[in-house]
Amino acid sequence: MLEFCQFGAGRIGAIHADNIALHSGATLRYVVDVNEAAARAMADKYGAQVVSTETALADRAVGAAIIASSTDTHADLIEAAARAGKAIFCEKPIDLSLTRVESCLEVAKEAGVPLALAFNRRFDPSFATLQRRLAEGEVGEVEMVCITSRDPAPPPIDYIKVSGGLFRDMMIHDLDMARWLLGEEPVEVAATASCLVDPAIAEAGDVDTALVTLRTASGRLCQISNSRRAAYGYDQRIEVLGSKGMLRAENHRPTTVEAATGDGVSRDKPLYFFLERYAAAYKAELDAFIDAVSSSTEPSPGGYDGHAALRLADAALQSFKEKRTVTLVW
Amino acid sequence: MLEFCQFGAGRIGAIHADNIALHSGATLRYVVDVNEAAARAMADKYGAQVVSTETALADRAVGAAIIASSTDTHADLIEAAARAGKAIFCEKPIDLSLTRVESCLEVAKEAGVPLALAFNRRFDPSFATLQRRLAEGEVGEVEMVCITSRDPAPPPIDYIKVSGGLFRDMMIHDLDMARWLLGEEPVEVAATASCLVDPAIAEAGDVDTALVTLRTASGRLCQISNSRRAAYGYDQRIEVLGSKGMLRAENHRPTTVEAATGDGVSRDKPLYFFLERYAAAYKAELDAFIDAVSSSTEPSPGGYDGHAALRLADAALQSFKEKRTVTLVW
Amino acid sequence: MLEFCQFGAGRIGAIHADNIALHSGATLRYVVDVNEAAARAMADKYGAQVVSTETALADRAVGAAIIASSTDTHADLIEAAARAGKAIFCEKPIDLSLTRVESCLEVAKEAGVPLALAFNRRFDPSFATLQRRLAEGEVGEVEMVCITSRDPAPPPIDYIKVSGGLFRDMMIHDLDMARWLLGEEPVEVAATASCLVDPAIAEAGDVDTALVTLRTASGRLCQISNSRRAAYGYDQRIEVLGSKGMLRAENHRPTTVEAATGDGVSRDKPLYFFLERYAAAYKAELDAFIDAVSSSTEPSPGGYDGHAALRLADAALQSFKEKRTVTLVW
Amino acid sequence: MLEFCQFGAGRIGAIHADNIALHSGATLRYVVDVNEAAARAMADKYGAQVVSTETALADRAVGAAIIASSTDTHADLIEAAARAGKAIFCEKPIDLSLTRVESCLEVAKEAGVPLALAFNRRFDPSFATLQRRLAEGEVGEVEMVCITSRDPAPPPIDYIKVSGGLFRDMMIHDLDMARWLLGEEPVEVAATASCLVDPAIAEAGDVDTALVTLRTASGRLCQISNSRRAAYGYDQRIEVLGSKGMLRAENHRPTTVEAATGDGVSRDKPLYFFLERYAAAYKAELDAFIDAVSSSTEPSPGGYDGHAALRLADAALQSFKEKRTVTLVW
Repeated sequence: MLEFCQFGAGRIGAIHADNIALHSGATLRYVVDVNEAAARAMADKYGAQVVSTETALADRAVGAAIIASSTDTHADLIEAAARAGKAIFCEKPIDLSLTRVESCLEVAKEAGVPLALAFNRRFDPSFATLQRRLAEGEVGEVEMVCITSRDPAPPPIDYIKVSGGLFRDMMIHDLDMARWLLGEEPVEVAATASCLVDPAIAEAGDVDTALVTLRTASGRLCQISNSRRAAYGYDQRIEVLGSKGMLRAENHRPTTVEAATGDGVSRDKPLYFFLERYAAAYKAELDAFIDAVSSSTEPSPGGYDGHAALRLADAALQSFKEKRTVTLVW
Repeated sequence: MLEFCQFGAGRIGAIHADNIALHSGATLRYVVDVNEAAARAMADKYGAQVVSTETALADRAVGAAIIASSTDTHADLIEAAARAGKAIFCEKPIDLSLTRVESCLEVAKEAGVPLALAFNRRFDPSFATLQRRLAEGEVGEVEMVCITSRDPAPPPIDYIKVSGGLFRDMMIHDLDMARWLLGEEPVEVAATASCLVDPAIAEAGDVDTALVTLRTASGRLCQISNSRRAAYGYDQRIEVLGSKGMLRAENHRPTTVEAATGDGVSRDKPLYFFLERYAAAYKAELDAFIDAVSSSTEPSPGGYDGHAALRLADAALQSFKEKRTVTLVW
Repeated sequence: MLEFCQFGAGRIGAIHADNIALHSGATLRYVVDVNEAAARAMADKYGAQVVSTETALADRAVGAAIIASSTDTHADLIEAAARAGKAIFCEKPIDLSLTRVESCLEVAKEAGVPLALAFNRRFDPSFATLQRRLAEGEVGEVEMVCITSRDPAPPPIDYIKVSGGLFRDMMIHDLDMARWLLGEEPVEVAATASCLVDPAIAEAGDVDTALVTLRTASGRLCQISNSRRAAYGYDQRIEVLGSKGMLRAENHRPTTVEAATGDGVSRDKPLYFFLERYAAAYKAELDAFIDAVSSSTEPSPGGYDGHAALRLADAALQSFKEKRTVTLVW
Repeated sequence: MLEFCQFGAGRIGAIHADNIALHSGATLRYVVDVNEAAARAMADKYGAQVVSTETALADRAVGAAIIASSTDTHADLIEAAARAGKAIFCEKPIDLSLTRVESCLEVAKEAGVPLALAFNRRFDPSFATLQRRLAEGEVGEVEMVCITSRDPAPPPIDYIKVSGGLFRDMMIHDLDMARWLLGEEPVEVAATASCLVDPAIAEAGDVDTALVTLRTASGRLCQISNSRRAAYGYDQRIEVLGSKGMLRAENHRPTTVEAATGDGVSRDKPLYFFLERYAAAYKAELDAFIDAVSSSTEPSPGGYDGHAALRLADAALQSFKEKRTVTLVW
């Protein structure tokens, strides 16, 4: 039985707590959150205790820590949990600074603890199946990866301001998908972007609409399309062109109901946002982490993947600003 | 907190036990099964106890009984649970004999206990949405209901022999859907059927492929298509033609992955069978039952719906045998 | 070069005239129509002449006759054309009376002329492909054929009155498809029907909504669903369940445009009616006729198929009226 | 009646000749081709004459010229036809050199003749409908245009060598679509590309896989994905994200047949290549040209559009070579 302490009792934290409860080999022991009421509610639901960070990490019965608190606390918590010898499951990002991420990876490595990064989309049933079939060679060699990723609506401006910007906050998920599907590291990054959704985003120094292209050393190409707004809901699609065909994964819909009337034939919009679309992914990623820790294997994706995706995001931002292709060496 | 005793610790029983655990207002207290090992495993998982039927029903703390044991035990358990004052959630069928069903309904009525019948498909997100939108008048008046219902593979012959036959065992779900969607009772039933899948089914006195048409008093029509075998998996589709358009619900698939190759463009088969397809429906139907009992409202569908569907199944069998339209008075 | 005389310069006639013009091995020589203006317009467009029936049939240079005039003239024209030694391409039906149809077939047989019946749907690219793949065994043995056939709107009441009724006028196309796809003659016919679309249709002694089930000697089943009204356009779909899978053909749409908005995801309605949906079929059926005549092979479908479909339509009507399954011997 | 002389009796020429024949207001008078047999066959089919360029252009009865000969003859023929006062319908490209294109436009302008450029995709029913609905504001302001354009297989290396390269030969169609759909001229162009399909293409100095991004002055973005090979056929898709939703047009398929078996659910591949996919577009573009000439309105797209698309193609090539964003002033 793997015992967890969880940092953060918000929306994502609640999902992880549910999934711990559904797993026969895991249990939630501690909840830590600055919002005491939220921490209390979560602890009560699962028979856990509300404690301080120190208490949670000091308990040797606790084998793993989930870090689902606000982004600015991730790096400190990773280092503290690593030094306390806990296996770590951290929401992205580790940090918005590459050097800070590197120090976290170093601390975890020295402590010898596994560090999983919650790139949840890798566990989406459709994307995971696409990646597996791609890896099995069903469509031959990868030639082009096309990722469409659009949010239903932009986050609050206050969030935008501390988010690190679209490339580091939003596109980082897609950059991770790109690395995973390309099967090679991108060595060239080119970006273009605009602020079309809300002028306040531009005032905050950010963009809301962006296109990035990647190229690997062997010439594989990738294009990523991001928008902070899609009137029809969360648009999460992937297609991969290979030498023998194409694999693609379309959006998920709440029902299969179709209405045919004098106005046309209509179906449901995609599931609204990440909580709905990636419900199965959240469960699968935590199950995979528990399995990895329980079997002493390395969880994947890990801290390195977070670091690599952040490098790509930084390169995209630089490319956008300098209007030129940025080259990366791995 | 509604406390349950559950009869039957098999596949369906396990699903109900999970869903009780996920519900914040319900708990599983007792498990009863002739298979002691199965009962023990379920009870251990949820902190319940393995007891006899008598003990379970005698405990006044128990508010509700789930009957998910073998079909031939349903009627006795309904009567016993009703006399013990428990709210009842029973897997279909109540019984294969209409008169026995009637006596069960009578006992439940006298005892004043709610009796819910587990026509799970009414709770499938796609079918439930279709029915709601139909009821809201989105496509006008109902004119024709078309139900396609095919199993991936026939059950064992031993099951076929005690099943009551295709009309009572398999099509009864579709006959319930027909009643629900037509919004009127069918007054004419015509059936045709064949044994095309496995000659052993004919030897057991049953059919494996069947078509039934229904007609209501106002002239609404319905066609039901059943087969015990669909090589591509569980085929569960509904379409309803109305005066202003059509609503239809297609099959559910495991992923949205599509492969385009030199051979064509292919997608996943439908989800394999009822456990996969109706996972969400099983949760929703139990939630609805718990809500109904907790709020002292009548659960739906109830015992009457089981009786009505069985009448239609018997009429279909008669029509098939006598090669004529059978008329029903309600 | 096969020279044609054409009887009937209406909508369908115009399509046939176009398709003769597009064929490198055929030419239109004569047009016959009681509506002289229509005949004149068609003749002028293609360099043909307007003549009387007698003149057209007397010309030995004319090898083939297209009969696309009003239904009540078909039988007489078939007999006249057959006696004049012309190959005959006749719009359905030959006649509404089985005995009259039989006499036409007899005359054509005695004259030794080919008689093709324009069951255009057999030449629809989707349906023809489905039938070919079915015949090639792609989904194993045929077990169940499901035909959905709904018109966008009912014809004028004056047409209804002389049409022979829904079974003989509209469903006859579907009964032909059923025979073609089942690969065996239906020996049992059961029908139910209603008047739901327009009370004037009931007053005219007809129905507008109907379901028919067929059963062949080996037990293959078929269901046909007809309505005189589908608010979303011409609904023409077929699915065939076989022992190894299912083939289905969906509706055709004008474009592939899809709109995703806050209201849902919508696509085009099906093509409006037979002129749009079966444009390719009309060309293919005439090409096939010209090829058959040019190569002295028997055109298919032929007069026999028209006779067989009418027998099924008559049986369906009888079944509906007598509320019993009607048996046919072939 | 508009009389045509046509230069080029190859595949595309044959399509135009058919479409002239189908148009009630046009006729084909002369065919000019260095391949005399091809010219003769086409002329015979439509009652036209085989003549020299000089003879064809000298006939004052001829109102319009179709230029469907080899690319290197286009500019000379445009100038000759313009000076002879003929309305001109020219296959793309006008020329591979921007300055030569400019001189052609100048000559046509001086001669006062309309010059239509055959960007056939603008007339595809799906793309034309998408553009119309976009222009009507159905999804609000345009934010992002995504164009997928992949050929089933690369052309012969000999063609590649004289083609002007992927950007000028293949992507030019997509650059025209981009301009048409963006509603603004792109002012920034960034490209990346690889040779992944056939090393011989790299040896010929070209690429076979490319991604281009465009940005307009107001910040609208566009991405274009090209490959010379798609194992599943001609992949021609467009999607446009707007402030109120998304419009997309998917591939066209030969039939709607779907097969469900134990292996999955499969549909047809897209139509094989441009002759199949754009058959309706070829007819519509010529009809539009005939209508424009007949009504003395300016045909669209015209020579200017060819010039603009070539500028974008040149900029893309430059961007690819210099690994930087290229800026354009209009």
